Amino acid sequence: MRSIKIQAPATVANLVCGFDVLGMCLHKPFDVMEVRLLNEKKIIIHSADGYPLPENPAENTAGAPLIEMLYEIEDEIGFEVIIHKNIKPGSGIGSSAASAAGAAVAANLLLDGKFSNEDLVRFAMFGEKVASGVKHADNIAPCIYGGITLIRSIFPLDIISIPAPDLFVTVVHPQIEVRTSDARQILRKEVLLKDAIKQWGNIAGLVAGFMKNDLELIGRSLEDVIIEPVRSILIPGFEEAKDNSKEAGALGGGISGSGPSIFMLSENEKTALAVEDVMKNIYERIGIPYHTYVTTINHQGVTVIPG
Amino acid sequence: MRSIKIQAPATVANLVCGFDVLGMCLHKPFDVMEVRLLNEKKIIIHSADGYPLPENPAENTAGAPLIEMLYEIEDEIGFEVIIHKNIKPGSGIGSSAASAAGAAVAANLLLDGKFSNEDLVRFAMFGEKVASGVKHADNIAPCIYGGITLIRSIFPLDIISIPAPDLFVTVVHPQIEVRTSDARQILRKEVLLKDAIKQWGNIAGLVAGFMKNDLELIGRSLEDVIIEPVRSILIPGFEEAKDNSKEAGALGGGISGSGPSIFMLSENEKTALAVEDVMKNIYERIGIPYHTYVTTINHQGVTVIPG
Repeated sequence: MRSIKIQAPATVANLVCGFDVLGMCLHKPFDVMEVRLLNEKKIIIHSADGYPLPENPAENTAGAPLIEMLYEIEDEIGFEVIIHKNIKPGSGIGSSAASAAGAAVAANLLLDGKFSNEDLVRFAMFGEKVASGVKHADNIAPCIYGGITLIRSIFPLDIISIPAPDLFVTVVHPQIEVRTSDARQILRKEVLLKDAIKQWGNIAGLVAGFMKNDLELIGRSLEDVIIEPVRSILIPGFEEAKDNSKEAGALGGGISGSGPSIFMLSENEKTALAVEDVMKNIYERIGIPYHTYVTTINHQGVTVIPG
Repeated sequence: MRSIKIQAPATVANLVCGFDVLGMCLHKPFDVMEVRLLNEKKIIIHSADGYPLPENPAENTAGAPLIEMLYEIEDEIGFEVIIHKNIKPGSGIGSSAASAAGAAVAANLLLDGKFSNEDLVRFAMFGEKVASGVKHADNIAPCIYGGITLIRSIFPLDIISIPAPDLFVTVVHPQIEVRTSDARQILRKEVLLKDAIKQWGNIAGLVAGFMKNDLELIGRSLEDVIIEPVRSILIPGFEEAKDNSKEAGALGGGISGSGPSIFMLSENEKTALAVEDVMKNIYERIGIPYHTYVTTINHQGVTVIPG
């Protein structure tokens, strides 16, 4: 039977002032996934690198979306998936979304594009539900659509691509554990109206900044008065990393998803590399193991590896 | 001494999901103001149509901005202002902003454009403070800049013009009294985080819709889950006016500023006129006196009347 090999990239959810609605696709890091079409209603998931995966596909981030997809197909087909995991689970840069979105996109390519991107987001959200208990699309949508996406609404699904300049992105992943569910529980259920007004002024400014290619406006709008003050407490070195990165020339940035990764946007590679140095220095000194990535906004999302 | 005559147009603040941060300038209705340069530090305000105005310029919506402007001018000059008021005070379509912005723009033209638009907004906000006790810019900014403006921040002032298609606007002013201060007091100081998320998803969608010229997206994003459910109680016929206008083809709309006026956006004049009929029918039946306006987005703001 036919098979396909794809890259499923990392993503940054929230983008500071866009909690639960904005996401951005990166070029690096990415998972590699091989998906093979089977001639029976069956889903098999393998890890290529010994990382322990749930054997039951319904409990697996890549498996759950494929189960949903098969519900909408009459033919006797199935999928075998081999995952080369490069995006560390728990890093806050869309590891589970890459598995879910990668599986959905690859399977759809084997079915000659039977489903729309919106269908694929709908299927892939079942993977996020397996991973975190919540159906959210702010990593999945940018992973499938590429670029920067707005999820205006989940029920009904309303995804809008936001054109954006080719910015550089520096990411540091301090290797501490921040569970998505914990990061969500520490948030207050109510917020001050005046803070909410500030936040929606900022997200409006950020969207306008991306679409106008106005880097200063993007920088000014990258401010989060609601989530970051609470969640950043869980990430040692956060304030220093942010302040020093901006001093080194970054436009701005913040917590990636629910953390612990931190991302910063820069106008050019030189600044993005200087920001990487800043981040390395901080986590060397604090003594927390870390990874860094210097990359750019990925306008394609999941892509096929020719072979 | 030299004098100038200008049109100071009505404006719609909030634009449904952009409470306190978005505003839009209209072509109709507009005030006419004549401003004359005086050769002494003095401000004189007249009403051309017998509408009673505070004689003390510091207590007058057009006077307060000019006092602030004179603080920043060393020359022995002053202004005499004659106001032909067409925008009804208390209508919720920026009557006080038109006086404040019109005075500031006209005075600046007499000074050969000494001050920037941002300066003029800064001065004109003192007029809003006189009118409602609060320095806000969501009517003043669109009145001065024209088009649709985002006030991302007031301190420091950060105003962003949002490009938008040439939409038609239908406004109905049911002649009941809704005081801005009352409309503000009935709002809760805290809002649910999940509602705030919905609101910032909508404002992001609205800005993207304006900039992409995506009328359906504009329509879907014109939703307010926080302010409208509370304030619309003060406006008889609101729900019916909104629902029937959308049935007649309007993209969407809501309360203009703090009300009682209601505005609706439409793709073309035919729909905007059908929406006007809908509104007329409702307020005829309810038996509340009303005015309606069918107009378009005014991309110029305050303009000079040649003469």
